[in-house]
Amino acid sequence: MTLSVDLNADLGESFGPWPMGNDEALLEVISSANVACGVHAGDWDVMARTMAQAVRNGVGIGAHPGFPDLQGFGRREMQMPLASAANLVRWQLGAAQAMARAAEGGVRHLKLHGALANMAAGDEALAAACFEGALSVAPDLILVVLAGTAQQEAARKLGARVACEIFADRAYNPDATLVDRRLPGAVIHDPAQAAERMLRMVGAGAILPDEGDPIPTRIDTICLHGDTPGAVEIARAVRRALAGAGVAIARFEGVPLG
Amino acid sequence: MTLSVDLNADLGESFGPWPMGNDEALLEVISSANVACGVHAGDWDVMARTMAQAVRNGVGIGAHPGFPDLQGFGRREMQMPLASAANLVRWQLGAAQAMARAAEGGVRHLKLHGALANMAAGDEALAAACFEGALSVAPDLILVVLAGTAQQEAARKLGARVACEIFADRAYNPDATLVDRRLPGAVIHDPAQAAERMLRMVGAGAILPDEGDPIPTRIDTICLHGDTPGAVEIARAVRRALAGAGVAIARFEGVPLG
Amino acid sequence: MTLSVDLNADLGESFGPWPMGNDEALLEVISSANVACGVHAGDWDVMARTMAQAVRNGVGIGAHPGFPDLQGFGRREMQMPLASAANLVRWQLGAAQAMARAAEGGVRHLKLHGALANMAAGDEALAAACFEGALSVAPDLILVVLAGTAQQEAARKLGARVACEIFADRAYNPDATLVDRRLPGAVIHDPAQAAERMLRMVGAGAILPDEGDPIPTRIDTICLHGDTPGAVEIARAVRRALAGAGVAIARFEGVPLG
Amino acid sequence: MTLSVDLNADLGESFGPWPMGNDEALLEVISSANVACGVHAGDWDVMARTMAQAVRNGVGIGAHPGFPDLQGFGRREMQMPLASAANLVRWQLGAAQAMARAAEGGVRHLKLHGALANMAAGDEALAAACFEGALSVAPDLILVVLAGTAQQEAARKLGARVACEIFADRAYNPDATLVDRRLPGAVIHDPAQAAERMLRMVGAGAILPDEGDPIPTRIDTICLHGDTPGAVEIARAVRRALAGAGVAIARFEGVPLG
Repeated sequence: MTLSVDLNADLGESFGPWPMGNDEALLEVISSANVACGVHAGDWDVMARTMAQAVRNGVGIGAHPGFPDLQGFGRREMQMPLASAANLVRWQLGAAQAMARAAEGGVRHLKLHGALANMAAGDEALAAACFEGALSVAPDLILVVLAGTAQQEAARKLGARVACEIFADRAYNPDATLVDRRLPGAVIHDPAQAAERMLRMVGAGAILPDEGDPIPTRIDTICLHGDTPGAVEIARAVRRALAGAGVAIARFEGVPLG
Repeated sequence: MTLSVDLNADLGESFGPWPMGNDEALLEVISSANVACGVHAGDWDVMARTMAQAVRNGVGIGAHPGFPDLQGFGRREMQMPLASAANLVRWQLGAAQAMARAAEGGVRHLKLHGALANMAAGDEALAAACFEGALSVAPDLILVVLAGTAQQEAARKLGARVACEIFADRAYNPDATLVDRRLPGAVIHDPAQAAERMLRMVGAGAILPDEGDPIPTRIDTICLHGDTPGAVEIARAVRRALAGAGVAIARFEGVPLG
Repeated sequence: MTLSVDLNADLGESFGPWPMGNDEALLEVISSANVACGVHAGDWDVMARTMAQAVRNGVGIGAHPGFPDLQGFGRREMQMPLASAANLVRWQLGAAQAMARAAEGGVRHLKLHGALANMAAGDEALAAACFEGALSVAPDLILVVLAGTAQQEAARKLGARVACEIFADRAYNPDATLVDRRLPGAVIHDPAQAAERMLRMVGAGAILPDEGDPIPTRIDTICLHGDTPGAVEIARAVRRALAGAGVAIARFEGVPLG
Repeated sequence: MTLSVDLNADLGESFGPWPMGNDEALLEVISSANVACGVHAGDWDVMARTMAQAVRNGVGIGAHPGFPDLQGFGRREMQMPLASAANLVRWQLGAAQAMARAAEGGVRHLKLHGALANMAAGDEALAAACFEGALSVAPDLILVVLAGTAQQEAARKLGARVACEIFADRAYNPDATLVDRRLPGAVIHDPAQAAERMLRMVGAGAILPDEGDPIPTRIDTICLHGDTPGAVEIARAVRRALAGAGVAIARFEGVPLG
């Protein structure tokens, strides 16, 4: 049996006249794209362009909803009722579905963005509201969750198709949370090191914190970044290393968790 | 054979803390609701609420996309490339579809809003871009068009299902355009007069301008308003008059035009 | 020596086509208006109209900045760096100054809105950032603060002119915070009761919680509301009661706190 | 007597996480900066940063207001009443003044942006509304106008201080309007050619169209761009050429036109 893993990245984060990221380079590397939905980033024209490119590259399309905070890029925490969070996700998912359909593709998965993702990683009720909102629109949607967080637990309880994600360029704490960005070593900048870590984690089927024991987990997809030239190098190195070790790069299918 | 006509109105035009219109009263009168999509008016929470109400009242749901100009309520003309106009419509339609699905309804029709509608009434290329955009997302969508305008012609050429609309409270020019709001008699305020006019036009199968000859046209639906108490009275009077004359009030189905 | 107190209310909270509040009625009652600055509510046209009305009525104009969250009306908590909060306040204050100047008035005071106000009431660093931001634009500005909170302490340390505010329609806890809106008796709906409370508090120079001891405090201004007919009745009753008791209603001047 | 000319460019056009332009390089070249006001581009944090840099570089600060159309970067035509256009300009000017004051600078001039500028160049009533709006806030403001257009005429009639502007990288028609961007030769890409043209025009005190006679005009300032590496090269070449020819580069002061 062949090991297989998906590679995902956030795409379509340009807005109006402002470009962001390196979508073209990433589309050569990834198997799944999380496309901003025009609320924290992206707009209808950017989405149309991004999804057409994804379809051409055979890359799976996901909706990547975030908070209604364009200036803050969805990275500032906002407090809203659970019902509003569900509607916020529904609305963005629907917009993404329409743009995907027009590009002769479809939305396969959903991944929360920024502060919404972080808050949902620690707040199962919020995660559940977002995911229920999404499933009420698209029952077969694959939910991409931060492995080992309240996101995963919420998705599990909903019986949804789930894909568990780890980060290529971030160090982990012993409890599976990410090491605070401000600490030394929290962010991995060396492509070789990132590639080697991913190879080990995928091989072990576990998150490997810098200290402490391995944390066994499904690993369906690896999150890559593309906002800097260095990030694209990491993405390419991870793909090369996995391919070299005989790991297939393929879109996740998602499975209900036990 | 029974004459039948649809009654439509714009709904869900509240935004955040700001209420607008009298949706509850109108939902008792109309058969089709044009729901704002969160761009020129409405938001995800307003849409969720409005669509749930529409479903409960057996009222057909339509997407009502407009220009990205919240402060101007989509009533200020904006110039944008045709491809952007198509994407703008797709995006809003998709958002509406998702909210409708979550409300256990579906989007049956689409009607352009405000300045976008007015510009498309006089610009067949713009109308075609908007409608093609919409049909690329939902091929079975019913397009509600301003009877006798470039909107109708664009929809006809696309072979789409079309519903032709006249206004309950507006006077017509001899060429089927609306009399300029600023002219005396352009807007009809008297419920009895509005009702009587609608009865005559539906009976005649023609737009009846104040001066000049009748303009034969399909009349599938009558546009009602609800932003003022008087408007609701007009809506009720029109419904009563039609029902009293044996005209059935029923959702349009839309037909491809010759 | 005559007792004197200011009456303030939030004004100019309409947006585009959406009216809010009862500005005309309130302008007959209040001496100071907190005008929304086009970020959480209001827009340039609403501000122009509101400020012209305030000038005509001899009502003092204040800037009322809030979070960049129109849909949430600035009532949803947002996390942002202190430097951004300062810039956010500066920007809104400047916009208000320009609109006031064009209306042949001037901005006398500043009062934080909604979630920004609430967060600053409990977070002295945030309050200081906002107030320093404002004073860097207008050193003579009067800062309206929630009496007894971190807002007051921050304003005191800055040596700014300060006006301390109590609420006409809210019950107080023994520590000078407001009773949670969800608790019975938290919001006062009876005009007579509100008026009588204000008279007692102004007379005592103290916040009078439902339980516990009086909390001595400056009382420079009383916050009134206008979003409901009942609220306007409360506003009028408070003004009548104070005037009847010989308390002068006059704009605050603000004083540096000891 | 020494010839002197100002060099201006649009700055502070980044938004939230999206950078734009090359402000640092341009600040070494220009004498006046047109700073976006947070409506079509820029935000409070970008403005604070940009203005602090301008003050450090001794570059004069201008407000650069545009249409409320962030996605379209203020380049899409919008129709609005003259009174709204005036308020729009006032509001943005006030925001800019506040940010400048906090940066220990001041707003010296105003220049309209994008579609608003283009529309005002051909519509004297619109230009007058915008300029009157600005002057009602800041009577001493210098108005930067497109030389030879309705902007200039409106500013002249208002008796305001005016600075007339030509473009470094655009060809002119015989009537002083710009050659349509889509025509060959409309945009000048060669730094040497741009520099040489500017030298000739400043020396002649006239716009020199590719065909037809020189059009005598005040030339107070030359508009440079910075959005591409090539544009910065043009900016530097123009400055070098002028300096080499003994033309002083200095902020405009603006004069009432006859």
